[in-house]
This record gives sequence, C-alpha cells and structure tokens, in this order.
Amino acid sequence: MEKFEKQMEFLIEAEKLKNIIRQSPLPFNRKENDAEHSWSLCLYAVVLSEYAEEGTDILKCLKMLLIHDMVEIYAGDTYLYDEEANKDRERRELAAADKIFSPLGKQGEELKDLWLEFEANKSKESRFANIMDRFQPVILNYLSHGSAWQEHNVNSRQVLEMGKEKVMKGHENIKNYYLNIINDAVEKGWLKK
Amino acid sequence: MEKFEKQMEFLIEAEKLKNIIRQSPLPFNRKENDAEHSWSLCLYAVVLSEYAEEGTDILKCLKMLLIHDMVEIYAGDTYLYDEEANKDRERRELAAADKIFSPLGKQGEELKDLWLEFEANKSKESRFANIMDRFQPVILNYLSHGSAWQEHNVNSRQVLEMGKEKVMKGHENIKNYYLNIINDAVEKGWLKK
Repeated sequence: MEKFEKQMEFLIEAEKLKNIIRQSPLPFNRKENDAEHSWSLCLYAVVLSEYAEEGTDILKCLKMLLIHDMVEIYAGDTYLYDEEANKDRERRELAAADKIFSPLGKQGEELKDLWLEFEANKSKESRFANIMDRFQPVILNYLSHGSAWQEHNVNSRQVLEMGKEKVMKGHENIKNYYLNIINDAVEKGWLKK
Repeated sequence: MEKFEKQMEFLIEAEKLKNIIRQSPLPFNRKENDAEHSWSLCLYAVVLSEYAEEGTDILKCLKMLLIHDMVEIYAGDTYLYDEEANKDRERRELAAADKIFSPLGKQGEELKDLWLEFEANKSKESRFANIMDRFQPVILNYLSHGSAWQEHNVNSRQVLEMGKEKVMKGHENIKNYYLNIINDAVEKGWLKK
C-alpha cells in the first residue's frame, strides 16, 4: 500500500502540469498548457503512427509524450526561441526530473530514463515523439495566424532551424505539410521571412 | 496526400476538446477541460498499469482514453449526476461519433469501435479505462474539498453508485484508496452522507 500511496502522490503532483502555460496559442483566446499539449502529441502520435519509422514502439512513444514535459512543473516552460533561458535549461530540468520522478523508486527511474531518451532524440521512439513536439506548435501558430511568432518576433529561418533535426527528419508527408504551412504563413504575412 | 490531409483535419478539429469544460475542479480556481482530463487518465493508466487485469493491452487502453471524450466536441459534456441530460446522451453521442470519426475512413472506424468498446465496458481494456475515468474525478473533487459535489448537491450514495460497476470492480488498492477518500470526505463534511 505504501507504493500505491507514492503512485497516487505522483499523480496528484502531476495535476500541476495543467497550470504550466506554453507559448502556443489556442483558438479560444488563451494559451495552451502542458497537459493539453501532451494530450495533443499523444493523439498526433496515434493518428499519424503509420508515418513513424518501421518498428517504432508506439506504446513507448506515448509514455514518453505523456511525461515529456513533467520536469516543467519545477523548471517552468522554456520558450524554444528564448536563447538566454535555454542556456541553463538542461541543468534546471535534470534537477527537476530527480525531484519529480525519484519518489516513485524503480518506476520513477524508468520514467526518468524515458524522459532522458526523449531529450537525447536518438531512438526511433524519441525521434517520432520529438517530431510531434516540433510539428504541433507550428500547426497551432498557423491556426492563430502566427500570433505567438509575432509576439516573440520569430522569423521563418528560426522556425525552420528548430525543425531541422526533428520534423525535417520525419516522413515525407509530415515534412511537406510542415513546409507548406510555414511557406503559406510567410506569404500571408503571419510569419516574417 | 489526401489521406494525410484528412488526418490533419481530424487533429485540428480535436483541438476543440480543450474547450469542453467538465465539472471536475482543478486546484487553481478553474474547472478541468476534456483534453486535460484525457491526459490525466492516460498518465493514471501508465502509472497504475500493474493493477490492471492480467493481459490488459495498455496501448489499446491509452488509445481508448485519448479519444474517449471526443464525441463531446459535438455532444457536449453530460454531467454524470444530471439524470435529465443523461436520458438522450447515448443518441447524441452516437451521432457525434459518426461526425467526428467518419472523415478518417477505415482509421476512423477503428477509433469509433474503440470508443464503442469503452462505452460497453466489457473488455479488459475498457474496464481498466473506465475505472480510471470514474476514479480520477473523485480525486479532483477530494483535492478541492468537494466543491463540485457541493455545487451539484451530490451525496456519497450517488458517488458510490457511479463507481459500483467500475472502480469497485478494480484492484484492491484502487478500491481501498477510493473508499477511503470518499469516507474521509464525508467525515470532513465535504460530501453529504
């Protein structure tokens, strides 16, 4: 029962992810939170699973996506294009991972390893998960006519740079869709060239 | 590419789940939405997977939980304790399921079947998913000192009735935790007897 109590404490602590606000705009006049974002990425991964590399373990990928932002409960959300804040992101997030996952013992170690695997972006599962994580925010920005891009003065070169090692290594269909909406956003004046 | 476009349209339509508000209270002065709820249930299912029936396919369970409330995009959230609204819930949700899933063709049929399986609560995966779906709102209500129970004048008999065929058929640990917090909520005066 002690183990179960710890698991429940972890799940209750996880509620805080619903209060970590990201920069991605939603179409109802507010920004997305990390829990909503994590749900979206899981749904993307399921619906688009046929475009993952052959042999990708989708269950592992979903577990990874469910917990990939949990370090932000303590480390906060670091905006992708905030160079200053990204300098010590790794250090802050590693400490946060210990804090959030270690009360779960062996199960916590497995979850921390999944998070580290996601961050390293070297396995099939983490590659697919990272593609979703860079693809979905671009969709949300496009749907809001580039509001977060404009708010943070981001240009298309920066957006493409962030997708280079991730979305651009994905399936043709995902890559093309991604490039098309970025080009279209530039043409429409929603994203600076 | 036409199939991929349809998949992206589905994922974009799914964004609306983030705007379907449930009755469950969050600890930051607002109610939970369906996307956050779906993420929570998936995380519960992963962390508590050892308490599922032997042979439960957790990937299938996660897919089910990711989409289990998507019909509410068109049918709205029907509060568990609202008897009047629950009378035509099934009819409204079936029509909504066709509307949301059918544009996806064969993949949509599979998702609709998963949703129907969840609703029927007859397979191992749907039983585990339904346990999570009845367990997590009780946790949120308890954490908020029973605010939604009080708002809707719900008593402990009604709460226990809703868990009878679901949480109470689950693993001992889940059942005990659930009964303990309901009893504690009654003792504390957060939930009427």
